[in-house]
Amino acid sequence: MPELPDVPEIEFRSDVTVELVKASARDEDVVFAARVSTKGEQSLSDVASEAERSAGLIRYLMRDRHGSPFEHNSLTFFVQAPIFVFREFQRHRIASYNEESGRYRQLRPVFYVPARERALQQIGKAGHYTFEPGTDEQHELVTSEMRRVYTEAYASYQRMLDAGVAREVARAVLPVATYSSMYVTLNARSLMNFLSLRTHRADAAFPSHPQREIEMCAEQMEAFWRPLMPLTAAAFDAAGRVAP
Amino acid sequence: MPELPDVPEIEFRSDVTVELVKASARDEDVVFAARVSTKGEQSLSDVASEAERSAGLIRYLMRDRHGSPFEHNSLTFFVQAPIFVFREFQRHRIASYNEESGRYRQLRPVFYVPARERALQQIGKAGHYTFEPGTDEQHELVTSEMRRVYTEAYASYQRMLDAGVAREVARAVLPVATYSSMYVTLNARSLMNFLSLRTHRADAAFPSHPQREIEMCAEQMEAFWRPLMPLTAAAFDAAGRVAP
Amino acid sequence: MPELPDVPEIEFRSDVTVELVKASARDEDVVFAARVSTKGEQSLSDVASEAERSAGLIRYLMRDRHGSPFEHNSLTFFVQAPIFVFREFQRHRIASYNEESGRYRQLRPVFYVPARERALQQIGKAGHYTFEPGTDEQHELVTSEMRRVYTEAYASYQRMLDAGVAREVARAVLPVATYSSMYVTLNARSLMNFLSLRTHRADAAFPSHPQREIEMCAEQMEAFWRPLMPLTAAAFDAAGRVAP
Amino acid sequence: MPELPDVPEIEFRSDVTVELVKASARDEDVVFAARVSTKGEQSLSDVASEAERSAGLIRYLMRDRHGSPFEHNSLTFFVQAPIFVFREFQRHRIASYNEESGRYRQLRPVFYVPARERALQQIGKAGHYTFEPGTDEQHELVTSEMRRVYTEAYASYQRMLDAGVAREVARAVLPVATYSSMYVTLNARSLMNFLSLRTHRADAAFPSHPQREIEMCAEQMEAFWRPLMPLTAAAFDAAGRVAP
Repeated sequence: MPELPDVPEIEFRSDVTVELVKASARDEDVVFAARVSTKGEQSLSDVASEAERSAGLIRYLMRDRHGSPFEHNSLTFFVQAPIFVFREFQRHRIASYNEESGRYRQLRPVFYVPARERALQQIGKAGHYTFEPGTDEQHELVTSEMRRVYTEAYASYQRMLDAGVAREVARAVLPVATYSSMYVTLNARSLMNFLSLRTHRADAAFPSHPQREIEMCAEQMEAFWRPLMPLTAAAFDAAGRVAP
Repeated sequence: MPELPDVPEIEFRSDVTVELVKASARDEDVVFAARVSTKGEQSLSDVASEAERSAGLIRYLMRDRHGSPFEHNSLTFFVQAPIFVFREFQRHRIASYNEESGRYRQLRPVFYVPARERALQQIGKAGHYTFEPGTDEQHELVTSEMRRVYTEAYASYQRMLDAGVAREVARAVLPVATYSSMYVTLNARSLMNFLSLRTHRADAAFPSHPQREIEMCAEQMEAFWRPLMPLTAAAFDAAGRVAP
Repeated sequence: MPELPDVPEIEFRSDVTVELVKASARDEDVVFAARVSTKGEQSLSDVASEAERSAGLIRYLMRDRHGSPFEHNSLTFFVQAPIFVFREFQRHRIASYNEESGRYRQLRPVFYVPARERALQQIGKAGHYTFEPGTDEQHELVTSEMRRVYTEAYASYQRMLDAGVAREVARAVLPVATYSSMYVTLNARSLMNFLSLRTHRADAAFPSHPQREIEMCAEQMEAFWRPLMPLTAAAFDAAGRVAP
Repeated sequence: MPELPDVPEIEFRSDVTVELVKASARDEDVVFAARVSTKGEQSLSDVASEAERSAGLIRYLMRDRHGSPFEHNSLTFFVQAPIFVFREFQRHRIASYNEESGRYRQLRPVFYVPARERALQQIGKAGHYTFEPGTDEQHELVTSEMRRVYTEAYASYQRMLDAGVAREVARAVLPVATYSSMYVTLNARSLMNFLSLRTHRADAAFPSHPQREIEMCAEQMEAFWRPLMPLTAAAFDAAGRVAP
């Protein structure tokens, strides 16, 4: 086996990064959009004067699945997470994505290793399984296997780059645990759809079973969003977290 | 013919209303989204320090049709225009709409009549026609016909409502010239697509022949948008107004 | 009032036309798409051999809202309905539309008049109303008002065309009851979303209150679709007609 | 280093699999959709009788970027390619995807290794580079590095699975070169957009620089599509391969 080149900067992470880059998203945006149905051009000026009725209107829209009023807003997040998380993330088509490119830059040696509290055992079969904590042995195995494979893969990547091989070719050896970075822009309707599928809540009308790592992203996104649109977030919960 | 009920408030308009309700849209949003490809997590902090290179980057993205960086922004417009304009408008699927409802409120008697400068004659056949000014006789005819038909249609609508007929049924008689109100939210990429199809410019790479009334909306939307994203707007023009 | 020009061909309709132009849509398409998750490249060959398990799989996908397997199919409908129906129809963005153009052809004098059984009275307020049958007087009023307004509007349209006014201008006087024609192409997932919103069923999980005229389109579309994908249609009903 | 478990079935591939599962896509579908603008309900019956004019109509639609008539058709492909290809593929949002799941099944040990003819050297900088053939030494290095890393990664994956670790956790070590399987359904308009971005043609109006491996998918998809819609495909080329 060839000698490992110098890769001092390798980093193992168990978390994900979510930052709110910017937002133009308020409960009032839902209200003026909904009221245009019945108020026409007065809907914008009525928003403030009828604030006390907004909560009821938003609950009604959510419950009866009038979704479009929840689209007149925008949130941009910066996310860092492993590639296997981004693979699931980008299946959501009602959003805008720009991601770090393995063709245009050398990818950095940052890799995912599960934290001790990450459940490791899947009990039961597809559709009816639960996740249970791993044993100490399993955690040791996972940690050591992952660290070793990642280190060797990145060293191999580096050797190919050093030999003049194009980044887009050499990256083939990198694991799906490699961290990537992206900007995601979406509106609250799309975000609620994402949350309904990517968070697990026992009391949801349609329980979902997301992989824990994307749920970690979803939970942070939700934490940023809720204080911006508190009436909408409360109505979402009250409606069983079914996106309108 | 039955007596006309009292409809004193009838209004004839030759223009459209476009207001920018809110916007979160800057050239910098394009830059940070594009730079994540090559800079990863540094892309946001680099935006300011490399401002002088932004124009070149934006021109490159536009010319080579890298569209996604132009999506991380949002503009919400309030538009009042005749229904026949909204019919064309809402065929653009990458946008969010909420519109005044003829089911939930009594529509107001506001109707479109072409201004004197509106070309009235279509010369040539489909795909190769031009629009030429109308004669005085044509303008008089159009004005008198429209005013009369609108007035009678609205009176008929009012009579049916007065007799207890549901709004959603009675509105069937209203003309497509009836004004409606809506909120539209879209991003700059979608807006550029809209502008490329709904404005006529002799120097566009793909000349379009929009109906004048929707072009009036498009021109006002463009006027609001250009100062918000001046580099993007200039690059759009330079690229023959082909949306990226 | 000016003399009416000769418009012998005027037609009043109370129904809508829906034809299935073509379809590539079978329950098997759902099964192979879903099974790729667990079977990879064997999913297509397994469709037939495991037919007996398909119903259960489809019910599971529907109930747990795994929507994407319902997208690998396509249905194209030809629809003729009043413009006010098309206005609602085209708000559904996950579909492809091509429609007759009032800019490129003279629109035909075909107009909507409600049938005797069409409920005319809306009782109660927004969000809580019901529709009740109209009285004989109301029906007579509606019929006579509509026929008269339509006839006059079309005569006016004809006069403007005869005077050389462009079709796109003259059509402004035509009522939203004017029939138009379009092709609509969508997949079963999008169709179920349409049906969930545009049909009224007392037993639906999220009851909807569509205008009767678009419901007439929806019912005919559903009647064409159900025999093509009977397991999917049954699962849709069983899941409270919530689109996956 | 731990002993490798038995993984006899490991497979190295340099190609991709594309199969046309089904298609409902003909040039006639473009024609009837386009003609509804001017012919209304006669558009379907006119398709055959005016076949000789279809080529001209399709060229006109393509050149003037009237895109919607190209949407009333559907093609479903089965694709097997490395994960790094699917990552790029699934960024195209106007398509339907179902993919093999690393959560629901054990992924198979099939990995990508570039063929001898795959260019390995990227010369020049972003936006202006070319790809040049690799040297023999580079090819040997790439082949040996990749085979080794893949083999070790899969052995590690297998060890974790054997120790009872959940598939979704263990797969973190697998490289982005791992093959996956998916079904993709899209229409011709979306396909042309895909082809315009994912094939490199010197004579294209907007030259694109796709990674070779996704271009291999695109070329096979195009080869299946062209004989189904020969007039559309010819018009696409004639218009500089700009999607309408």
